[in-house]
Amino acid sequence: MIGSGKSSAARVLDDWYVACTSAQLDACGDKPFATQIYGVPFIVFRTPEGVGALLDRCPHRNVPLSEGRIDGSWIRCAYHGWAFDRVGECREIPTLCAEPGGKARTVQHFATREQDGVVWVYATPDVEPVRDPYVFRFAREPGFHSGSAETFEVEGTIHAVGENSLDVPHTAFLHAGLFRKASAKSGGNPIEVVVRRWHDRAEAEYIGEPRPSGIVGRLLAPQGGVVTHFDRFVLPSITEVEYRLGEASQICTVSAMTPLTDTRTRLTAMISFRLPIPAALVKLVLGPLARAIFRQDARVLEQQASAIARFGGESFASTDVDALGPQILRLLRNAERGDRRELESAHEHRFTMRV
Amino acid sequence: MIGSGKSSAARVLDDWYVACTSAQLDACGDKPFATQIYGVPFIVFRTPEGVGALLDRCPHRNVPLSEGRIDGSWIRCAYHGWAFDRVGECREIPTLCAEPGGKARTVQHFATREQDGVVWVYATPDVEPVRDPYVFRFAREPGFHSGSAETFEVEGTIHAVGENSLDVPHTAFLHAGLFRKASAKSGGNPIEVVVRRWHDRAEAEYIGEPRPSGIVGRLLAPQGGVVTHFDRFVLPSITEVEYRLGEASQICTVSAMTPLTDTRTRLTAMISFRLPIPAALVKLVLGPLARAIFRQDARVLEQQASAIARFGGESFASTDVDALGPQILRLLRNAERGDRRELESAHEHRFTMRV
Amino acid sequence: MIGSGKSSAARVLDDWYVACTSAQLDACGDKPFATQIYGVPFIVFRTPEGVGALLDRCPHRNVPLSEGRIDGSWIRCAYHGWAFDRVGECREIPTLCAEPGGKARTVQHFATREQDGVVWVYATPDVEPVRDPYVFRFAREPGFHSGSAETFEVEGTIHAVGENSLDVPHTAFLHAGLFRKASAKSGGNPIEVVVRRWHDRAEAEYIGEPRPSGIVGRLLAPQGGVVTHFDRFVLPSITEVEYRLGEASQICTVSAMTPLTDTRTRLTAMISFRLPIPAALVKLVLGPLARAIFRQDARVLEQQASAIARFGGESFASTDVDALGPQILRLLRNAERGDRRELESAHEHRFTMRV
Repeated sequence: MIGSGKSSAARVLDDWYVACTSAQLDACGDKPFATQIYGVPFIVFRTPEGVGALLDRCPHRNVPLSEGRIDGSWIRCAYHGWAFDRVGECREIPTLCAEPGGKARTVQHFATREQDGVVWVYATPDVEPVRDPYVFRFAREPGFHSGSAETFEVEGTIHAVGENSLDVPHTAFLHAGLFRKASAKSGGNPIEVVVRRWHDRAEAEYIGEPRPSGIVGRLLAPQGGVVTHFDRFVLPSITEVEYRLGEASQICTVSAMTPLTDTRTRLTAMISFRLPIPAALVKLVLGPLARAIFRQDARVLEQQASAIARFGGESFASTDVDALGPQILRLLRNAERGDRRELESAHEHRFTMRV
Repeated sequence: MIGSGKSSAARVLDDWYVACTSAQLDACGDKPFATQIYGVPFIVFRTPEGVGALLDRCPHRNVPLSEGRIDGSWIRCAYHGWAFDRVGECREIPTLCAEPGGKARTVQHFATREQDGVVWVYATPDVEPVRDPYVFRFAREPGFHSGSAETFEVEGTIHAVGENSLDVPHTAFLHAGLFRKASAKSGGNPIEVVVRRWHDRAEAEYIGEPRPSGIVGRLLAPQGGVVTHFDRFVLPSITEVEYRLGEASQICTVSAMTPLTDTRTRLTAMISFRLPIPAALVKLVLGPLARAIFRQDARVLEQQASAIARFGGESFASTDVDALGPQILRLLRNAERGDRRELESAHEHRFTMRV
Repeated sequence: MIGSGKSSAARVLDDWYVACTSAQLDACGDKPFATQIYGVPFIVFRTPEGVGALLDRCPHRNVPLSEGRIDGSWIRCAYHGWAFDRVGECREIPTLCAEPGGKARTVQHFATREQDGVVWVYATPDVEPVRDPYVFRFAREPGFHSGSAETFEVEGTIHAVGENSLDVPHTAFLHAGLFRKASAKSGGNPIEVVVRRWHDRAEAEYIGEPRPSGIVGRLLAPQGGVVTHFDRFVLPSITEVEYRLGEASQICTVSAMTPLTDTRTRLTAMISFRLPIPAALVKLVLGPLARAIFRQDARVLEQQASAIARFGGESFASTDVDALGPQILRLLRNAERGDRRELESAHEHRFTMRV
């Protein structure tokens, strides 16, 4: 009864994750930004030569480099003042007469990319990345407005948090009123769902869904109508929730998940939209709404994570309406094994649900 | 020196334990009461069909059912709104077009009995109980008054807490003044103790003990005299402390212990008595006294548990005057193995102690 | 990358450690002083026959003896009142008619010595010590003044804390201004260092070091000059930092480290000096200065310990200027194996550093 030992945690190490936003980095002054991926602590720091990311441990006596300070192009340890450049080479050891460098004195470094207002870090140290980081959907597209990236931390694996972001059934129940209307116990209109999976992403398309009754629906389609709705997961950790009403009205919420540990996740969320309403007004409404929804999700994800920890593992039972959860897990497991072979065609299945 | 690994913890799973008092359950409103036995979390909830007890985990995504709400005859999960009846069957999955039921969607349930103002739960899920719950001694007997059940939580195994409840030597020392008088270092009157053990219980009879000098003694025997005193342990987790002076004066304190975990115990205590003094007056005195004694016991039990944890196991040395501790352990070990064969006659031994 | 499993922790059990200062013991009144060595909890208590040290666990039901009280020559357990003398023999069991003594009822005891204002305890219980405790350097020498022993607790192994106490390079960086001047990034005067190791101690002699520019240097040598400076580690856990200017001026800081656990250390520090300045004035300056330096060291040692715990082990890279760290580790490893054979002559090596 207790202790299945099962976990949806999967470690995809040959890919990029958001380390922090550019704004978070700039707020650090001469201190580095300290964070972690899959429990590996590292620092991010800006130098005249660009952003560096190093394992958060001085090779000398293991004091965290995050306790040190940026000194020109170097990060300098707080204990004995050893100084390292942005690729981890030791450049100075105070009081030592000999040369500072050498393999044993080099810190592991991580490749970085700064784009769209966030800093991406490649999860495997000391290697050349085999792919490029994700580009936030619509963030660079003309005609679209984007909020600035906001970050939230939440308990749960990438699978649990990603599934939550893309799950429709809980929105009418947990977020009743905020997003979809509270469902009648045995009610709702039947709509068709098409689920597709490629080698690096999965998508659920909701066909014939009436405009959601909450605020998002009203922003999108003040006169009502039938919306087009896509939910997508993109390896290693991206979720996209996209609503369209014709070509003129589009709202897309993207979350880039960072696996701080196997069971704790940071979301870096960005909303992009084009709507026949002033952008400032839209942002005024969407920001607080997104935060209210997030707080409810964060709470239930923490309850879920805590129960899984208490029971010593997961024991899930899925149904048709868990449209993307099982697809996400399959993609993660394949990617963890290094398998991202392209498929001849997308896997596809359909079902009906009531919303 | 460190780490014996020994523990008096024993898991007797084919028996009943108090889950909560009826009053605690009623105070929950439309929320279930959440608790645990041997570390297994479960909920108790009242429906029109009676009290149900289910494992505290939704089979869908493992959110605790204790976060949900009672909805008529069902408990409904807080995340996606799955609804379960009092024997754990899934009766509704919002948005799903197919039938809700099925083995993978059923929650383990525990047999329940509500009697004497408490809710009993059988520790093995999904089975028919092989025996009935304990009936509080004297609670249903004409002429007796009973206080309402009170609950206390304390660190310690069933063995440690049960032994403490039934132990005489510590009362004169730890509870000096409250219960027995502080013993002279080498003093006290010699009295005879008879210890008896049956297949499901053990008893110590104290013969010739002068009336205890504390408040309990004075209530029982205002004019003094020689009291009859029995301490009993009844499987799986009941202690009874009974004092008599003739037929007219009797006080019995019963504790039903619930093993929340192997090393944390909840007591559900009830005092029953008949005395030639108004019952209201007796209750006025006994309640605060029992709570004062309990606080002292709780403190020393926590010190004991914490030292055992720190040393990585128990290392006990017993003497004659530890009358019932070893008997309790033997009963628990036998019952844990499923052995409650009736004996041809009670095991019996005698010793002398000074009180 | 994570989890080297390496640790500089070493358990030297056939030697003496400071349990507490005499002042700490006297402040306890009729309660024992509770502490631990290598995670073994024990109590220290003063009786008319001398100071006793016993394992902090009553053999009866394992309640910590530190919860009890001193009763004449005995320590009496808080639960049932069992009483033990200073070598751990059980001398009284209240209510028991039989004799109290016996092997199973005896508590392990530790040899003690009270000298120089501190209580030393031998780390192996129930044995005759094979050597004498350390005598604080200069504390008994005529002409010297000594402050009273002060205690501090800090995270880190004996190795990490001892190395920190005796390390020169970090003083100019971490304690910039307090002790040595902040080093120019590539500067300082080259001085010669001689490192010597014997079977039970190691020493670094700094030759030609100009007077340190901080307060200590000014006290020692108001007119400047070249100081003589020795750093020493003495098994099992003593550090000495000694400065001399001729014969008239000497300051020596001794720390006796107690391994509370493998990774937490208590320092008992004493400063002894003779200086051509009034002793009261010297104490007025040295006390606050030593505490300020200690706070900086404690902080960086905690950062180091926390990173080592997080990374699951140590990964150190040393250079020449880590003069004594590797020597300390070698002495500890040898002593842990019981090897303190005298060497034919001291091991010696030299290097140059810039300070």
